[in-house]
Amino acid sequence: MNEFEFIEHIRPKTYHQPSLLYGVGDDAAVYQFHQEATVTAVDTFVENIHFRKDTMSATDIGYRALAANVSDIAAMGAEPVFYLASIVVPNTWSSEDIKDIFSGLAELATQYRMDLIGGDTVSGKELVLSITVIGKVDATRLRYRQHAKAGDVVFVTGTLGDSQAGLHVLLKELPETHPTFKDLIKKHQRPVPQVQFAQQLGIISRMALNDVSDGIANEAYELATSSQVDIHIYDETIPTHPLLHHFTKEQIEKWKYFGGEDFELLGTVSQKEWPMVQRVATSCNVQVTEIGKVTEVSKQQPTVRVLKEDEWTTLQQLGYTHLK
Amino acid sequence: MNEFEFIEHIRPKTYHQPSLLYGVGDDAAVYQFHQEATVTAVDTFVENIHFRKDTMSATDIGYRALAANVSDIAAMGAEPVFYLASIVVPNTWSSEDIKDIFSGLAELATQYRMDLIGGDTVSGKELVLSITVIGKVDATRLRYRQHAKAGDVVFVTGTLGDSQAGLHVLLKELPETHPTFKDLIKKHQRPVPQVQFAQQLGIISRMALNDVSDGIANEAYELATSSQVDIHIYDETIPTHPLLHHFTKEQIEKWKYFGGEDFELLGTVSQKEWPMVQRVATSCNVQVTEIGKVTEVSKQQPTVRVLKEDEWTTLQQLGYTHLK
Repeated sequence: MNEFEFIEHIRPKTYHQPSLLYGVGDDAAVYQFHQEATVTAVDTFVENIHFRKDTMSATDIGYRALAANVSDIAAMGAEPVFYLASIVVPNTWSSEDIKDIFSGLAELATQYRMDLIGGDTVSGKELVLSITVIGKVDATRLRYRQHAKAGDVVFVTGTLGDSQAGLHVLLKELPETHPTFKDLIKKHQRPVPQVQFAQQLGIISRMALNDVSDGIANEAYELATSSQVDIHIYDETIPTHPLLHHFTKEQIEKWKYFGGEDFELLGTVSQKEWPMVQRVATSCNVQVTEIGKVTEVSKQQPTVRVLKEDEWTTLQQLGYTHLK
Repeated sequence: MNEFEFIEHIRPKTYHQPSLLYGVGDDAAVYQFHQEATVTAVDTFVENIHFRKDTMSATDIGYRALAANVSDIAAMGAEPVFYLASIVVPNTWSSEDIKDIFSGLAELATQYRMDLIGGDTVSGKELVLSITVIGKVDATRLRYRQHAKAGDVVFVTGTLGDSQAGLHVLLKELPETHPTFKDLIKKHQRPVPQVQFAQQLGIISRMALNDVSDGIANEAYELATSSQVDIHIYDETIPTHPLLHHFTKEQIEKWKYFGGEDFELLGTVSQKEWPMVQRVATSCNVQVTEIGKVTEVSKQQPTVRVLKEDEWTTLQQLGYTHLK
């Protein structure tokens, strides 16, 4: 199968979005939103850095890559509509593997009626998947990181650290078929971006949102720095999956603050509107937990502090960084 | 330099485009066009496949990658406005090299007042640069490949095969400092996408356009197939650089049909509007040459035929393909 045959294979036969004027098959795709602003982001995934063939199927790799990107769109309060997928294929991956990656992308995309509108397929030494995602949003409903204000409630969806715990189970070959660990593994291989919840929060007047891709320590610092505020987190309120009790205190601590890749949402909202957020969460069947508050900056620069066993400590903005 | 410091380094200090609501620094960039449609494409470049460190500086690599993408936008008749740059960095490349790649991107971007609005930086085994480019266009002025009609004039801008000749000079270490080869080398390292010319053709009512990224054989087939027409090319009219006479007949033949990466435009337009295209070319100081005509399909499927020394032959759609 050469590049042209492959492109013909993955080219969508039909499209969902009425705003699309032309999809795959010309020099560029064309679309037009009439009312909404466009949001766009790109994320790149490299074999053995972001995923491993022994812990994820090719379909999962595609599914998760798009989920990570869609999560960025959700964190802007926007609706995901299009994506472009660029892939570098080494000769150790078969045509079937690559088709499976695109099946995984398509599987997630179908849930949101997203259309694949472009991409590139080239050969190389290691598998690299680069996804550009495009969403739309009423410009007055954008959820910028800089929207946090002193007095806000800090909340998070779902539970934290699951994805890293799932990866640990897979890598250590703990009994993954044991029903108890399935939830954690699923969270690692098939995370659910919080699109519906973020969309329904459109009724809230002001809100800061960040998706938990690098761990809440990093995400909380991003909110604090962008908004020039401090963030206080109450350690014991951070929601974790009941299954995390199977692991050590150190592991739980590491995963919940620095684990990342849970693709939950970390947000801040006024105390007045917090009950509304809780009602929306209930209607979407999403767990939402108050884990702290926003305060004025107390030192020279914005910091994130954690209250644990009656002691305040400054949280480090660790998380995974590239390039050293 | 870690990932966060690097992002801070490449983050634009100012932006040019008034349609941009938010650039680099949140989960996604945000922009809003009010009248125009959006065009978008992605292209990925891999070390030793698309470029080599011994034939191009890091700055050239960035410059050329964005030029290739901008060329796609030009071929849609659109104006390039934004780009996102995702890079996989192996440890054999220094921070300075990577900064230079981004300088090259910025150098080309500045010419068109394009803004860098997003990206991703990750580590890996080989350098991969993936660029997403975004343009805008009045939807009635889109230049689709399917717009060719029987009776049209087929034209091309500039000269063909220069980029491959330039690469040959660099690889064979022919006297590149000799002033005579400088034009060819420049065409390889710093191609000029035909943005201004394509923009000014907005006055033409209908036109099919393709940029010459894979050689005109491939581009002509794409126009023919999309439009369901045949294309006839007169070999002796294909414009080549005078310096190509330094090479063999076989090299010239190969480079002008299959060389690619010249980023010129191949188009078709009605005979009635062809003089207008010539006038626009003159005003933009762009060479434009009539090289053939569009006819009805004569066999079962669209074909491209070449008239050479009084003989017609069917051109093969070769060009470079990945994935074999």
